[in-house]
Amino acid sequence: MPPFQRIAVVGAGLIGGSVLLAGARRGLAAGFTCWSRSDDARRFLAGLQVATVHAQAEDCVRGADLVVVATPVDRMEETFATIAPALAPGALVTDAGSVKGAILQAARRLPSTVTFVGAHPMAGSEKAGAAHATADLFAERPCFITPSGTEPRAAVERVTAFWRGLGCRTTECPADRHDEIVAAISHVPHAAASALMLAVLDQPGFSPAAAGTGLRDTTRIAAGEENLWLGILLANAPRVVGGLRSVEARVAELRVALERGDAATVNRLLAAARVGRQSLDRPA
Amino acid sequence: MPPFQRIAVVGAGLIGGSVLLAGARRGLAAGFTCWSRSDDARRFLAGLQVATVHAQAEDCVRGADLVVVATPVDRMEETFATIAPALAPGALVTDAGSVKGAILQAARRLPSTVTFVGAHPMAGSEKAGAAHATADLFAERPCFITPSGTEPRAAVERVTAFWRGLGCRTTECPADRHDEIVAAISHVPHAAASALMLAVLDQPGFSPAAAGTGLRDTTRIAAGEENLWLGILLANAPRVVGGLRSVEARVAELRVALERGDAATVNRLLAAARVGRQSLDRPA
Repeated sequence: MPPFQRIAVVGAGLIGGSVLLAGARRGLAAGFTCWSRSDDARRFLAGLQVATVHAQAEDCVRGADLVVVATPVDRMEETFATIAPALAPGALVTDAGSVKGAILQAARRLPSTVTFVGAHPMAGSEKAGAAHATADLFAERPCFITPSGTEPRAAVERVTAFWRGLGCRTTECPADRHDEIVAAISHVPHAAASALMLAVLDQPGFSPAAAGTGLRDTTRIAAGEENLWLGILLANAPRVVGGLRSVEARVAELRVALERGDAATVNRLLAAARVGRQSLDRPA
Repeated sequence: MPPFQRIAVVGAGLIGGSVLLAGARRGLAAGFTCWSRSDDARRFLAGLQVATVHAQAEDCVRGADLVVVATPVDRMEETFATIAPALAPGALVTDAGSVKGAILQAARRLPSTVTFVGAHPMAGSEKAGAAHATADLFAERPCFITPSGTEPRAAVERVTAFWRGLGCRTTECPADRHDEIVAAISHVPHAAASALMLAVLDQPGFSPAAAGTGLRDTTRIAAGEENLWLGILLANAPRVVGGLRSVEARVAELRVALERGDAATVNRLLAAARVGRQSLDRPA
């Protein structure tokens, strides 16, 4: 027997669409429903034939025992308010948003008859939209589960089992700590990659034809959809601002050393960066 | 008949070793010689059985009609001075250095009986050393040819044909323009990736286990060998310093907009970066 009777995905883009495909393949529910704001996405989702596609978010969640909210971070509060009246008493609600503190606040819009347990699967791509969804998007990907501490333990465990069922490796931590971690490893690098791309465009020597894998890799995430990232960066702004101050300081440190021809300092900075980067590739 | 009698590679690491492997496979010379400063590299090169390996750079170049200098940028002048007395009159000398203005200056150490034509194949990896050399490193890679304008045109054409023979797509331009281009598309991104890595390490939320492909790609080139990059960044310092000032300005612009909650500006900056990044993936 599948762990859920009906899973509803609200906002079925890259992440939500992949929840449907992975959930169906792994048999996590007897049935699936979904909603997307876009007509095109709804047509595409209907073609996948894994879920009943609804034109209204509230219709999509009716009768579901698990609701996965995968709308952009800056639409979460509005989404919670929209679906609140239609949620079945006893339903579990989880999400896939990249910033957890703000979403935990927004989840106050949900009725007290349901239980919300936030999650953040670290899966994605610079390609947005349901058309890029895949059943293996979550395979072996880290996923944060961010309980507030006030919900029943059984609900946390059921939501954890759901994300593990999709293929994720889960880690539990408070929303604040989560937001600090993703600022460091995701939001600050994203903003820095965008700023680097703009700076490269500013250079008199910028020549796309000559660009190699170095520039391409370094700026790849800057191709991400700006509206999605605008919401994420604003929702985690204090931490991202702090991280960007560090970036400015480190760039200036290297720049001043180069200006002075201070080979020892340049060498020390490059070596520390190399060691740090190599630490990312070591098996955990 | 191969285009050259004997090709000598001085400094056979990743690039020089790949010149040997690609040159041998494509039959660019009747014979190959090489030199590396490191005992280990010389043993490894001997094992490849594509070139006679010499323990002294001057012995390696004797009798060669094409000499490829592939030592690090900050050792070029010393290398030119070492090989100068042993070069055959009429020999062509080319190089693979990432900064061309400084190398053109250093090439004044060569005797007037030889002709130097600088080159920069945009091929490489964060992995250094002959052990990572491959015969297809240059396939379809851009390669700058940077004549000074004073050398015989036939020499420029012969060196161009050599790099094309290795698989490169060549472009001719003056050394100054080359240095401006590589500052924008390679040296500034490298320095910025190193600075970003250091800033990420500075964050209280840095968690290597949670790092995804975004951080990995954005900082991949920061894993490059610091001594190699120290030489490159110092040799192109004025342009790299200018580029890093742009990076500081663009990071600050984005940071201030986030601090102010100025969604319109954040959105505009992210969108401009996205459009710029997408321009790198358009077919040339």
